[in-house]
Amino acid sequence: MREIQVHELKRVELKNPVMIEGLPGVGNVGKLVVEHMIEELKAEKIIEIYSWYFPPQVFVNEDGTVRLCKNEIYAWKSPKLDMLILSGDQQSITNEGHYLLTETYLDIAQRYGVSRIFTLGGYGIGHLVEEQKVIGAANDRELVEEMKNFGIEFMEEEPGGSIVGASGLLLGLGKMRGIPAVCLLGVTSGYLVDPKSAQAVLRVLCRILGIEMDMQALEERAKEMERVVERLKKMEQAQAPVRMDEELEYIR
Amino acid sequence: MREIQVHELKRVELKNPVMIEGLPGVGNVGKLVVEHMIEELKAEKIIEIYSWYFPPQVFVNEDGTVRLCKNEIYAWKSPKLDMLILSGDQQSITNEGHYLLTETYLDIAQRYGVSRIFTLGGYGIGHLVEEQKVIGAANDRELVEEMKNFGIEFMEEEPGGSIVGASGLLLGLGKMRGIPAVCLLGVTSGYLVDPKSAQAVLRVLCRILGIEMDMQALEERAKEMERVVERLKKMEQAQAPVRMDEELEYIR
Amino acid sequence: MREIQVHELKRVELKNPVMIEGLPGVGNVGKLVVEHMIEELKAEKIIEIYSWYFPPQVFVNEDGTVRLCKNEIYAWKSPKLDMLILSGDQQSITNEGHYLLTETYLDIAQRYGVSRIFTLGGYGIGHLVEEQKVIGAANDRELVEEMKNFGIEFMEEEPGGSIVGASGLLLGLGKMRGIPAVCLLGVTSGYLVDPKSAQAVLRVLCRILGIEMDMQALEERAKEMERVVERLKKMEQAQAPVRMDEELEYIR
Amino acid sequence: MREIQVHELKRVELKNPVMIEGLPGVGNVGKLVVEHMIEELKAEKIIEIYSWYFPPQVFVNEDGTVRLCKNEIYAWKSPKLDMLILSGDQQSITNEGHYLLTETYLDIAQRYGVSRIFTLGGYGIGHLVEEQKVIGAANDRELVEEMKNFGIEFMEEEPGGSIVGASGLLLGLGKMRGIPAVCLLGVTSGYLVDPKSAQAVLRVLCRILGIEMDMQALEERAKEMERVVERLKKMEQAQAPVRMDEELEYIR
Repeated sequence: MREIQVHELKRVELKNPVMIEGLPGVGNVGKLVVEHMIEELKAEKIIEIYSWYFPPQVFVNEDGTVRLCKNEIYAWKSPKLDMLILSGDQQSITNEGHYLLTETYLDIAQRYGVSRIFTLGGYGIGHLVEEQKVIGAANDRELVEEMKNFGIEFMEEEPGGSIVGASGLLLGLGKMRGIPAVCLLGVTSGYLVDPKSAQAVLRVLCRILGIEMDMQALEERAKEMERVVERLKKMEQAQAPVRMDEELEYIR
Repeated sequence: MREIQVHELKRVELKNPVMIEGLPGVGNVGKLVVEHMIEELKAEKIIEIYSWYFPPQVFVNEDGTVRLCKNEIYAWKSPKLDMLILSGDQQSITNEGHYLLTETYLDIAQRYGVSRIFTLGGYGIGHLVEEQKVIGAANDRELVEEMKNFGIEFMEEEPGGSIVGASGLLLGLGKMRGIPAVCLLGVTSGYLVDPKSAQAVLRVLCRILGIEMDMQALEERAKEMERVVERLKKMEQAQAPVRMDEELEYIR
Repeated sequence: MREIQVHELKRVELKNPVMIEGLPGVGNVGKLVVEHMIEELKAEKIIEIYSWYFPPQVFVNEDGTVRLCKNEIYAWKSPKLDMLILSGDQQSITNEGHYLLTETYLDIAQRYGVSRIFTLGGYGIGHLVEEQKVIGAANDRELVEEMKNFGIEFMEEEPGGSIVGASGLLLGLGKMRGIPAVCLLGVTSGYLVDPKSAQAVLRVLCRILGIEMDMQALEERAKEMERVVERLKKMEQAQAPVRMDEELEYIR
Repeated sequence: MREIQVHELKRVELKNPVMIEGLPGVGNVGKLVVEHMIEELKAEKIIEIYSWYFPPQVFVNEDGTVRLCKNEIYAWKSPKLDMLILSGDQQSITNEGHYLLTETYLDIAQRYGVSRIFTLGGYGIGHLVEEQKVIGAANDRELVEEMKNFGIEFMEEEPGGSIVGASGLLLGLGKMRGIPAVCLLGVTSGYLVDPKSAQAVLRVLCRILGIEMDMQALEERAKEMERVVERLKKMEQAQAPVRMDEELEYIR
């Protein structure tokens, strides 16, 4: 075991693909989006990444087998657009690991001639979200302007904000390698896994990429979540003690 | 001192041994089982493992001497079955160390031609256990099926669960080396050192391995523990303040 | 990405410059001073330092673009005095990183023939400051005496005190390389970003360096801060709940 | 700067010296003892040890100068006995550092042909100590017996106890190199810097080494501490809120 181990399962030919990152984070927004995309697009897993920067644990699959904590890269080809999708169980649990894993993702991006990176995540505001919104940041001034056309708000009124983890570092370290990269953050409470925010992010992303995608599955999870939130609100009004843990199991 | 130092005390010949791991963890279940096995089988210590991933401390023996924090491997030979048993004072206290120590255990397993690994531990449920149960996971689909024949429940209804530390990583990293491995977890409260759960795990393990073992010692510790639990329950009913620390000294 | 990466943007000729360090810390005093100096003196950025010892994040600029967490070195030349100014987003978040980053700053100092280092920071006393004061420490006995002439109090009555981070290590590790270094700490509450304390430090520093500088900008921030403190005091008297976060936004 | 840097200030000839370690720890007992010894014996500093495993800080001396956090070794020669004394500002703040610094101390011990190591510390019992007592542990069975003759109690009734940090590791790692080593722990509350416990340890140590030493200075600090403890007790009886911080300043 080396600190980061890249297992290439399959070598595919891609034409200037875009890379989409959706690792676990606030509201699990990014991960929900890319998991949905992988399923809908039937993207193909081509790379597994293992690392001692991930937690020292295995996850138990539905069939009783286990799998090591890992990150994965999927490929998708279409006449119009090729894509690499980065998904995974966890982000690094050390500082150094965040930097080194991001460099690994960028090495892969460069090997495949990635033309642009989109990193996806959630932006926690500490209270329930009234209106779905997607805010953004980019590693290039022109890219900021281009993205504004898609209704993304840029955090100009909030300078000094920061983006932690792979979603941020892919922009920062990506710039050093000359790869244009945009971060799209769905506004979310920060308390709940948020498929509704994920839907908002996916919608914007599809518009940017010029692709269409069935959102049924995310829609259903979002509705389920809304029901939970409604119940939470009622319970709060009734001042009954809220048993968050149990409730949340429905929407995980 | 290197990061991990393997002291081979004795070289033995073993025939496709199984490896049993029982390092400290939830309810100390795994450690109780392997300590009992080492004593009952009169297994022989053949390897000591020192590492700066273990806590920087020495333990004081009964005779006033000290020993460095370490892990140990014992060997046992019989006409029917050979065995390596991994026991120890502590698990790694860093993330990286968990991965690297597990690789060390696997190096030793491969050197001895280990045919199968059993990792033992506890599965904490947060309340007192009514009925002893052993749940499992394996790094191979066929192994899951085989183990079901021994009454082990697999966590199929609970996907997303995870196994932390050596008990999990030996399965995950073992798979990469093609070594079949099973994890057996005794259900336990998670609050107490649990010889009763250890007994349940040992019973299943003996059945799987086709060996018999006197359980007297574990039985006695389990009875002692039951008395403590009874007292705890009564005190709880009487709403008297429970002095856990003192009570627990009896069963450590 | 190496652990510390020094990007030299421009090579300038300097004549035995002094180095001024003002990285984030107590009351942000040091950072406020050097940011003011860089602006007033129109100092030129010559070096960027990236490191995986900085937090794994990017900061969002006002125009929606991002920048990697970094430290920077600016140069300033004048007929009378040349200067290197060390500023930055963060200090190291690991122990080892503090030492290694400081060694990097000293490597740069030596490459430019730095004749003396001034490290700037705040000294938190846990309550509002009545009278502005600058206390000091130095890595050389003669330097202590020299500095006393400028009204700096030395912590002689308080032996056993310590200076954490780059402001301290530049003195300690600087001494090993024979570079004289002084630390100037503005006394501050430790609770608030403190432009008033920064002003006091800058005033003393200008006197020592024999330069003059417009303090208007710092003055204004200090006045703003005083208004906030006044409001805080009143609210405290009225025993109204103080919303620190909101208040502080004005003076960040 | 390397991870551990040994600065040899002076090379002395010693004849099978004993090594005495007294680094900061519980009740600062070990450090109080060796500081007293260094002063009383007028031992000579021969080695300074710097390391990035120490906290990233400098300490301010009484004259306003600073010194890097470090450990030091002093030498003392007498017709009857030669000695190396290990003192210092701090212990390692990482796990790995504890092991590597201890190896460094042992390297030095071996270079000087150290015949025996004594590590000194405190053993916190969580309440005020009625009767001074010194308990011990050793890395050799014969050494345990030998030490019992000096009235040291061995923790035989308390197996499973552990000794953390350099005081423990010097025994454990020392054994691997064949260096006999004893740990002497003064029983102490664990809440206060404890010169009284230090006195008890020093007394036993002098008896073992067959040397005499003036204890006036420690005696005075112990008396001062007793006065503070008396005051604390009275305040406790009066149920007045105890301002520990202030009180403790007297005896630091």
